[in-house]
Amino acid sequence: MADAPIITLTTDFGEGSRYVAAMKGVILSINPAARLVDVSHCVPPQDVAAGALVLAETAGWFPDGAIHVAVIDPGVGSDRGIVYAEIGGGRFVAPDNGLLSRLAELASPRKIVAVENPEHWRQKVSRTFHGRDIMAPVAARLSLGLDPDRLGGPRDRLVTLPTRRANRVGQRIEGEVVEVDSFGNLVTNITADMLDGVPTDESVTVRCDEHETVGIFQTYADQPEMTLVALVGSGGRLELAIVGDSAAMMLGVRVGAPVVVTW
Amino acid sequence: MADAPIITLTTDFGEGSRYVAAMKGVILSINPAARLVDVSHCVPPQDVAAGALVLAETAGWFPDGAIHVAVIDPGVGSDRGIVYAEIGGGRFVAPDNGLLSRLAELASPRKIVAVENPEHWRQKVSRTFHGRDIMAPVAARLSLGLDPDRLGGPRDRLVTLPTRRANRVGQRIEGEVVEVDSFGNLVTNITADMLDGVPTDESVTVRCDEHETVGIFQTYADQPEMTLVALVGSGGRLELAIVGDSAAMMLGVRVGAPVVVTW
Amino acid sequence: MADAPIITLTTDFGEGSRYVAAMKGVILSINPAARLVDVSHCVPPQDVAAGALVLAETAGWFPDGAIHVAVIDPGVGSDRGIVYAEIGGGRFVAPDNGLLSRLAELASPRKIVAVENPEHWRQKVSRTFHGRDIMAPVAARLSLGLDPDRLGGPRDRLVTLPTRRANRVGQRIEGEVVEVDSFGNLVTNITADMLDGVPTDESVTVRCDEHETVGIFQTYADQPEMTLVALVGSGGRLELAIVGDSAAMMLGVRVGAPVVVTW
Repeated sequence: MADAPIITLTTDFGEGSRYVAAMKGVILSINPAARLVDVSHCVPPQDVAAGALVLAETAGWFPDGAIHVAVIDPGVGSDRGIVYAEIGGGRFVAPDNGLLSRLAELASPRKIVAVENPEHWRQKVSRTFHGRDIMAPVAARLSLGLDPDRLGGPRDRLVTLPTRRANRVGQRIEGEVVEVDSFGNLVTNITADMLDGVPTDESVTVRCDEHETVGIFQTYADQPEMTLVALVGSGGRLELAIVGDSAAMMLGVRVGAPVVVTW
Repeated sequence: MADAPIITLTTDFGEGSRYVAAMKGVILSINPAARLVDVSHCVPPQDVAAGALVLAETAGWFPDGAIHVAVIDPGVGSDRGIVYAEIGGGRFVAPDNGLLSRLAELASPRKIVAVENPEHWRQKVSRTFHGRDIMAPVAARLSLGLDPDRLGGPRDRLVTLPTRRANRVGQRIEGEVVEVDSFGNLVTNITADMLDGVPTDESVTVRCDEHETVGIFQTYADQPEMTLVALVGSGGRLELAIVGDSAAMMLGVRVGAPVVVTW
Repeated sequence: MADAPIITLTTDFGEGSRYVAAMKGVILSINPAARLVDVSHCVPPQDVAAGALVLAETAGWFPDGAIHVAVIDPGVGSDRGIVYAEIGGGRFVAPDNGLLSRLAELASPRKIVAVENPEHWRQKVSRTFHGRDIMAPVAARLSLGLDPDRLGGPRDRLVTLPTRRANRVGQRIEGEVVEVDSFGNLVTNITADMLDGVPTDESVTVRCDEHETVGIFQTYADQPEMTLVALVGSGGRLELAIVGDSAAMMLGVRVGAPVVVTW
């Protein structure tokens, strides 16, 4: 039991999608012992950048050796490739469209293989659902011990999305909102490291669009309800939150909004 | 482990419904080794036809012998029956209200048994939740090896929904939208077989309500963003899609809208 | 396999939340054999009372010994405690903020332990996500056999929410709506016991806000579509439903609305 392989699924198919069920069925038909874990099926449709972030924030929490299948695949049926990659302790199967690029910023891939050998796929491959017909069967066979080198030829690099790193110059950090979480908190690309030496008292100002707050706190509970608070969140990133409510809704802020820290 | 029985669940209870959790608890209390897989809990409330389609499109992907419990049950507490049926490689437990009728169009049931012997149910059966009190315990006991003939008497036929088959006459196929998928694609009841010999070039026109497109493509990626495209989707059915967006939203089309192919 | 420990999860993180995935990853990293079951991630954000009800309505359906982790935790990072409690056949890990208080109304806790020994937590604990950093690892270690007494010191009582019990005086019961279920049914705090001896024919009137219906029925199917019906639901509580539709939407009624039964 302890050895039953874990296969996680991350898609933009939506909760309750029968496409997710089809992928699970295909995996269990090949490896009935696979242990399936849903990471998220609520990645915004065809939003590769959002999916890349979800993978980068979640995969590291799973046991080493877990297989992570990610299908946010607007280019399905075109000539975009599919890859197998080993990054950190995880093994990933995904379209080579940038979906793994946030992960690859955290740790260099140890191995990249093009998924191009149809021997390990469903016999009949549709042109619109490679998640079910290629990625699911490949993940299931990897979970049974298939040597990843048999999937296809080695690759040197992954397709990457443009980096959206924050920038620190003098007493100013410029970043942006990269995610709105399920509480409406605004998660930025400003990491804890980048805040090294920055004061946390009222001499620091955090601005997002035209909204402004002073101080960087440690938890939501430090401030009264309905206050805008900046804090370093559980993912090690600067967040803006409204205590007891949704900052995204209250402030009308979305992914991409500029965030500036000055002190 | 490889022998742990799979029980899938399809309901209209909604994501995060505590009614689903209750069914899972009942199953695991009877067979702690059961492996539960959620197919969907997002079938529109009390929409038996939509549930029938979800089952028909998903059950075939699961391993033979899997037990599929489906609870879209507006008639709970009335005199509608509950059935056990073997169709294709799957074993189904559902209200006998048409929920299995799309499956039964794909393959004739090999066995139908009325679920009428209370010995295998929860001792106390509510009048409003047979999913928890009858279908979940029956599925759990089947997964432990209960002989289905002990559930009740044999039946000849299932209750069926009116068929909504498309019609091909001369150089014209008339069908309809039978599903809006999670990307907003309009899935029709026009199957790939029915398109046999139909041209795919610009001599073919596909119309849905007042919207029209020419050609039948193989994948979304063949066309520029925001174009209306007709293609044969991953389920082997003609679909209408807007590249990079939701056709259902953009066109205001719903299930039941007429679709006509002419050439 | 039959012995693989069940760990259920109840949160307000939302479906598809990467925070849920992180908790699952942490649990599986400590105990790869744990069997995870999602109870609900759709508890309204920070609504401890709603979460308390979900736990009370679902935990009893799971096998004895199951570990239930519940994270509706608006006070995370403040001085609110975290507790381990044994109530009925279940074992619970949750913030001590009232989340277990509906359960504790059904059965007195047999054991309460403060979760205060960091030895069993993640080494680095964030100030905003104790679900991942404290509760998930504690649950995983309990599932491996950790003696709960090692989690911290014993406690006498749990923090409780104010009781919202219905009241029966003479030929009148006063209660309120405590939950809107996924069908829009209005579930009240008036239990079946409390209705003992109350007539079910047309001599009984059930009122909710300005809406009124006569008789208490056994099932939705007893009445024509679109009728307001009072019935004792599958959880043993008086419910108001509109046959074939959502009572909450049609009547504009929410949690907290007064419900009065007279006869």
